[in-house]
Amino acid sequence: MEFSSKLLERAVNEVSQLPGIGKRTALRLVLHLLKQPKEQTTALAEALQNMRNDVKFCKSCHNISDVDLCEICSNPNRDETLVCVVEDIRDVMAIENTSSFKGLYHVLGGKISPMDGVGPHDLNIISLVNKVKEGRIKELIFALSSTMEGDTTNFYIFKQIQDYKVFTSTIARGISVGDELEYADEITLGRSIVNRVPFESSLKI
Amino acid sequence: MEFSSKLLERAVNEVSQLPGIGKRTALRLVLHLLKQPKEQTTALAEALQNMRNDVKFCKSCHNISDVDLCEICSNPNRDETLVCVVEDIRDVMAIENTSSFKGLYHVLGGKISPMDGVGPHDLNIISLVNKVKEGRIKELIFALSSTMEGDTTNFYIFKQIQDYKVFTSTIARGISVGDELEYADEITLGRSIVNRVPFESSLKI
Repeated sequence: MEFSSKLLERAVNEVSQLPGIGKRTALRLVLHLLKQPKEQTTALAEALQNMRNDVKFCKSCHNISDVDLCEICSNPNRDETLVCVVEDIRDVMAIENTSSFKGLYHVLGGKISPMDGVGPHDLNIISLVNKVKEGRIKELIFALSSTMEGDTTNFYIFKQIQDYKVFTSTIARGISVGDELEYADEITLGRSIVNRVPFESSLKI
Repeated sequence: MEFSSKLLERAVNEVSQLPGIGKRTALRLVLHLLKQPKEQTTALAEALQNMRNDVKFCKSCHNISDVDLCEICSNPNRDETLVCVVEDIRDVMAIENTSSFKGLYHVLGGKISPMDGVGPHDLNIISLVNKVKEGRIKELIFALSSTMEGDTTNFYIFKQIQDYKVFTSTIARGISVGDELEYADEITLGRSIVNRVPFESSLKI
């Protein structure tokens, strides 16, 4: 792709480094900005830089936060004996949206994935194990993706903490609400039968 | 969508103002930037701001350029009597890629579209008509999209310049190279038969 302007070319190249955005999409986005008032580009550029330079991670759960201890960790109404282990902050947002969890989170920052060069020491696992060692956590809920990498990470953490007195659980796998049974894959369907729940408890939510 | 950080929220809101990018995609892009070195975000922000603040438009053809007169307009080897009228600079790039056009361009900056509030005076039409009045242009090629808006724009310009001595043409509509005849729409197929070309000339490209 040949550009008539170096400034345009540099902008397109930078935007196309974002995941899932190719050169054509980048050009479309950049030309859109050119048609908008200058203030929009300034606001976008400043928002990105401020975010990148000033954003903090909660020192306890590693969630993104503007202060040292995030709103969830510093909320006295939340149950600090119940900790949900998730991959990244999008999972925190998704679970918070359900309003069904009143404990704290621990954000790992990814999954163990040798193929992508991510080992246990690249994730926030040591601080989680230390929290367990302190003995205040009663239950640890694993809420990672149901993939090989997710299962590996669950198991790695489980091995690290199995000698300490903590109950570990994992989120239920089963048929999604609204799904047709006949289209479910057999592993999910099998698990949903093995891990069936009393009918009365299913009426609560 | 609730965010644990105002900085993150502002960045996501700004990114999601780009066309075709929703809040979820914006969050994914912003979290990606957080995992990359700070330099990448700085480079992106600076490239966008420099582009928006410093980019120029060629004073003759309105193409994006770093100098007053773009490389194409200032190239003495190009035929200045032949001018191709296009919607935006992506069309210039697309035609330049074919290496089959050696004239100059005129970038309108859009199409006449009352539905979107774009009238003739929002486009670079007056400067085009003035160029025709000066009398140096022998042929004007309309290369707008084959839509109602494109046809309207073609016709509006044609009415403005029909009293001046200039030959007007429009790019050929027909079956795309590699297309199956049976899947072509009937208007395209009809036009490709009416506007058939001598077989020998089709061997040249």
